[in-house]
Amino acid sequence: MREPSNPSLLAPLARKTGSRIVFIVMDGLGGVIGDEPTALQRSTHPHLDALAAESALGRCLHVADGITPGSGPGHFALFGYDPLDLEIGRGLLEALGLGVDVGSEDVAIRGNLCHIDADGNVTDRRAGRVATEDAAPIFKQLQGGIADLEGVDVEIHPGLQYRFAAVLRGNDLHGLVGNVDDTDPQVEGKPILAAHARDAASGHAARVADALGARAQEILAGGEIANAVLLRGISGRPPIMTYPEMTRLTSCCIAAYPAYRGVARMLGMDIKWDVASTASIADEVDVLEQAWGEDYDFFFLHVKATDSAGEDGDEERKAKVIEAFDEQLPRIRALEPDVIVVCGDHSTPGPMAGHSWHASPFLLQGPWSEADGGTSFDEVACDAGRFGGRFPAMGLIRLAMANAGKLAKFGA
Amino acid sequence: MREPSNPSLLAPLARKTGSRIVFIVMDGLGGVIGDEPTALQRSTHPHLDALAAESALGRCLHVADGITPGSGPGHFALFGYDPLDLEIGRGLLEALGLGVDVGSEDVAIRGNLCHIDADGNVTDRRAGRVATEDAAPIFKQLQGGIADLEGVDVEIHPGLQYRFAAVLRGNDLHGLVGNVDDTDPQVEGKPILAAHARDAASGHAARVADALGARAQEILAGGEIANAVLLRGISGRPPIMTYPEMTRLTSCCIAAYPAYRGVARMLGMDIKWDVASTASIADEVDVLEQAWGEDYDFFFLHVKATDSAGEDGDEERKAKVIEAFDEQLPRIRALEPDVIVVCGDHSTPGPMAGHSWHASPFLLQGPWSEADGGTSFDEVACDAGRFGGRFPAMGLIRLAMANAGKLAKFGA
Repeated sequence: MREPSNPSLLAPLARKTGSRIVFIVMDGLGGVIGDEPTALQRSTHPHLDALAAESALGRCLHVADGITPGSGPGHFALFGYDPLDLEIGRGLLEALGLGVDVGSEDVAIRGNLCHIDADGNVTDRRAGRVATEDAAPIFKQLQGGIADLEGVDVEIHPGLQYRFAAVLRGNDLHGLVGNVDDTDPQVEGKPILAAHARDAASGHAARVADALGARAQEILAGGEIANAVLLRGISGRPPIMTYPEMTRLTSCCIAAYPAYRGVARMLGMDIKWDVASTASIADEVDVLEQAWGEDYDFFFLHVKATDSAGEDGDEERKAKVIEAFDEQLPRIRALEPDVIVVCGDHSTPGPMAGHSWHASPFLLQGPWSEADGGTSFDEVACDAGRFGGRFPAMGLIRLAMANAGKLAKFGA
Repeated sequence: MREPSNPSLLAPLARKTGSRIVFIVMDGLGGVIGDEPTALQRSTHPHLDALAAESALGRCLHVADGITPGSGPGHFALFGYDPLDLEIGRGLLEALGLGVDVGSEDVAIRGNLCHIDADGNVTDRRAGRVATEDAAPIFKQLQGGIADLEGVDVEIHPGLQYRFAAVLRGNDLHGLVGNVDDTDPQVEGKPILAAHARDAASGHAARVADALGARAQEILAGGEIANAVLLRGISGRPPIMTYPEMTRLTSCCIAAYPAYRGVARMLGMDIKWDVASTASIADEVDVLEQAWGEDYDFFFLHVKATDSAGEDGDEERKAKVIEAFDEQLPRIRALEPDVIVVCGDHSTPGPMAGHSWHASPFLLQGPWSEADGGTSFDEVACDAGRFGGRFPAMGLIRLAMANAGKLAKFGA
């Protein structure tokens, strides 16, 4: 079930028009059909049901039957990229999610503050899960002591708690390649590892990573909370066509969580940075309404709480999140977008308390979507919909663009 | 939804038998399910309905979800070729459609007679849309003055009105490659462009094209209607396996329009050249009946008027064309073909007045087709059919051949 490569297929067909697409990703939306009702089945969502009646329905697969997608691959598939072709480093996503741009010559790292003993063995991989505000002075110290290493600039960007992103800035002399293994030994009681380059081109980045680890130990020497750093997810930017290049869409991302902003940023979308990490769905729709006045034709709105509830095994709370979204839906529809998609990046069934491989329900409403005419939006209704129970997620963006009149004919 | 490559899959399995397949393409057959009935839904077609009751039904996708096929890609998919792998030049289709063979070493060009002013700027890209009979003496003049240029033979074949096909005949010394840009500046008031080769191998064809343009201006100098030519769609024959090689079918094409003959000719089918461009469906069935006495086992019958009506936004006229076809269907069935396929090369919904991405209805009747047992032939019935709403068009020829007993087992 491999899909065609959207970058090479869509780029020559995409055309700029005034129509607008709202693309709503409810994280982990899907459940598993079984004895217990899913969150979609147990919640009351009249506005979603009414929208479903005007929509074509289906359940989508992001990677392949039986494969449970992470959030990254799930989103890439929804935006039309084949997740099997894309290996995205966690360092890159962390940096992008913190609002730090990473260029094609740069390498990004996801770091932990940590603690080591006198023998150099790691005693705490997360520096006692230090609070964000207590970590701030430690990061200040680090930032003050590190500028360039091995001929390239190195930046430290604090994240939540013990987490940070480091960006190694490639330059004309040293374009960096980031195929480098973690220095994190993964278990406590072992020494920090030397950075191992997996290919010759990545040797320079490995040397910078080792120098960064050593310099951090000098700077933090004697620190009680943290006296070293672990470097993980060392990675460069993959050479992919950006979303604007592929689709000609002028896109904006409304998401509270850094990882999803990171995905959108990597693809070249504009990010609404003023969405707080604590933003409610209503807050996000406020931002959507404001952004409606701007020159965008694609609005990616991300709802996180469905997934968090599913991960906690709390199907009832997940149902409440769906109901909270449903209450906001009329505000979105009042904007009169030409096309609305409501989908998920993977399923997170409460009874499984984690991501799963089950195809994720979606609806697509547009002027030519061939509505199925059902009266509900849940896994069973979507299985029975036009796009069936195994629709390749990579096709969604094509259908959305086609309905919005944004794709020219293929071939004469 | 990428399908296996039929050329490599089918060629070793295809076997010659006496059974016969009638493969009817109603151009742009499909509509869009919505508020208005589609042409299939609003027309009365008792014979199609009766055939549908004995058939397996579905709607087929020619390229991918959301992608609107041109007629070329749509037909290639129906004949089992992946349209994503095939780039077919317009010059090639024009020449083939006029009945001119183009070999693997040749390059074909779609030309316009045009008019230029004293400064060499194009004043009329279509020579006043000169009538075919008025263009005839101009083409005679051209043909008389051009024989070989830059070491290869050059032929001029008149088309309708100002159009012609030029074929540059490669030879043992000069095998030609046709990756050459148009000399047509696309707008009036600008000079004719030099032929630009996109790769080194195409340099010779570009030189011939330039020589052809220059020689045409010498021959036509002072001409009132036309005094120059524009060269477009310069292209060679793609290196594909022919239809007879892939399927072992002895095929004939019954089509009134040059473009569809061009597609069939490129694939190596026999063309029934005596079908007039004004032929009715009944006229085409006359030719089918005559051809039935010959040694063919695959009959491609093309109906154009469904698409034309859809393009004009006239769903009522499209319905009438379907009814006109339905009246002829008993004559086709009276021939007792082993397998009948009725399909479209894409959808052309009247309300959209153009090609669309919506999957196109088809039926397949054969001795082992697992009939769905429905009682109608339209988009809704086909969605509900055995092959569902998203059947890959490239699979149709496999099913037709299988039902006709023309495919051996794959593997031991």
